[in-house]
Amino acid sequence: MKLARVWTLLLAVGGMALPAIGQNKTSVAERLGFGRDAKLLIVHADDVGMTHAVNAATIKALESGAVNSASIMVPCPWFPEIADYAKAHPDVDFGLHLTLTSERVYYRWGPVAPRDRVASLVDENGYFWHDWTATTRIEPKDAEVELRAQIERAYAMGIRPTHLDSHQYRLYANGKELFEALLRVAHEKKLPFFVARDWFAEHSYLEPSLSPGDMVIDHTVTIAPEVRAEKWGDFYRTAIKNLQPGVTEFVIHVAFADEEMKAATRERETWGAAWRQRDFDFFTSAEFRELLQQQKIRLVTWRELARTR
Amino acid sequence: MKLARVWTLLLAVGGMALPAIGQNKTSVAERLGFGRDAKLLIVHADDVGMTHAVNAATIKALESGAVNSASIMVPCPWFPEIADYAKAHPDVDFGLHLTLTSERVYYRWGPVAPRDRVASLVDENGYFWHDWTATTRIEPKDAEVELRAQIERAYAMGIRPTHLDSHQYRLYANGKELFEALLRVAHEKKLPFFVARDWFAEHSYLEPSLSPGDMVIDHTVTIAPEVRAEKWGDFYRTAIKNLQPGVTEFVIHVAFADEEMKAATRERETWGAAWRQRDFDFFTSAEFRELLQQQKIRLVTWRELARTR
Repeated sequence: MKLARVWTLLLAVGGMALPAIGQNKTSVAERLGFGRDAKLLIVHADDVGMTHAVNAATIKALESGAVNSASIMVPCPWFPEIADYAKAHPDVDFGLHLTLTSERVYYRWGPVAPRDRVASLVDENGYFWHDWTATTRIEPKDAEVELRAQIERAYAMGIRPTHLDSHQYRLYANGKELFEALLRVAHEKKLPFFVARDWFAEHSYLEPSLSPGDMVIDHTVTIAPEVRAEKWGDFYRTAIKNLQPGVTEFVIHVAFADEEMKAATRERETWGAAWRQRDFDFFTSAEFRELLQQQKIRLVTWRELARTR
Repeated sequence: MKLARVWTLLLAVGGMALPAIGQNKTSVAERLGFGRDAKLLIVHADDVGMTHAVNAATIKALESGAVNSASIMVPCPWFPEIADYAKAHPDVDFGLHLTLTSERVYYRWGPVAPRDRVASLVDENGYFWHDWTATTRIEPKDAEVELRAQIERAYAMGIRPTHLDSHQYRLYANGKELFEALLRVAHEKKLPFFVARDWFAEHSYLEPSLSPGDMVIDHTVTIAPEVRAEKWGDFYRTAIKNLQPGVTEFVIHVAFADEEMKAATRERETWGAAWRQRDFDFFTSAEFRELLQQQKIRLVTWRELARTR
């Protein structure tokens, strides 16, 4: 909990305030055919597959154009529903939200790999750890076995992912070895992965671990627990108006706040049912579309980014 | 599908029409302190843990007295929710609904044991088989490993089960070896298990496999796919009015027909959301309570049965 919370705060602040670190080489925006001043945005829904309420809201948000990219949690119970949808809609920009934790209390999941091959990832009941604490010893080789298993199940069930990212930023924020496990798997599968220049100052091992061919986007914005419900729209309005040139990913979490979602997340409010309903409501609003137009923000997908490599 | 359907039909017919086979030894009813003519009933909700909608409806039905016993599916995603409830309510009559299939399409689960130790139970994607067909080769030793893993996780998470039974009757209807796996595990854990005299004619290996100390109830009644929605109440009214002396278990399936449940079961109507809502509605009705009184039917639980052993 704590790590994820602190991390999210850093991201929110970083995404809002830090300018892109200059680079000598051609920017992603330029490779996409835009000028250096272009403001490009990925509106990205995380956690697809977690519950039916997340799937239903994500599909509605994708089909209405409110979000243009999303990533899927393979170990989750509702993965077959979204895999079926992804297979039937191969143009949708679906990545894999590589998952090594099962953070809830009343509704949980475990590894895709055989449990005895990824022993350090699971608790005494066989689920992924709720959380990683100072005493949790994660073996990077177990993580790598599990990442491969998730990707293999996704392909086997018909998904052709456009990108990879990491649930709760676990593979970015917990040391060089876990990040390198992600890199090895991404390179092997020839998939771009979410990494933002914003994060380099906080985690010094990220930038030196990258290969020359890896794509780095410029910024990321995600809402923090400190934002009160009534200030939700204000947060996003400010973020859109202050959007920096380059490629930014808005990391959002949509779901319908129905009985399933409320029950699944009832032990705490952060990233809970009401939170996700607020994200759904803001990003499917006419106001959001108008703000993008006013600010001359262009939407881009991971599929488009991948083509520039 | 087919096997389960045929089996359910047989049970429904058997439960309604066949008299108890006479035995020389003392009946379960007599051991409970009732006469041989007493009509004793367990109103048993299956599939607890499958979804939140099943858990919520089962808890409501238990707390209102509409059902007096239930059994829990340990491998299912919502198992932690019902385990938490069972731990906080140790007097509730919860058994374990031992599960070896993952019959749905959009929402699935897999084994509790490490997958590579129970290879014959899982499909190419690592979930329990949707169904067992003529070509599915289930290794009884794999089933036994998985049964033990489910029971161990249940105890580890605070459940003290009153009985065992088998999801979709798989351990009764698929040969002597699987039934004997259930027997070994039940004897080792000193738990009574659901077996009804009604079934002996259909599956000749059941009765000879039993030990003298095993408890056999007399009848079971469960509704069949052939019953149309508008005849739901009629089926149960007739079953209650024709209840035979001895111990009968009504095997029912309750859930709220909300978005989660409708989505989880949408590929077919049998045992679907509307079916389970109809069961919930009938058994929580005043009419059901009145019928029990009129027919002088006494409710008994598995915990009470276990005490007579």
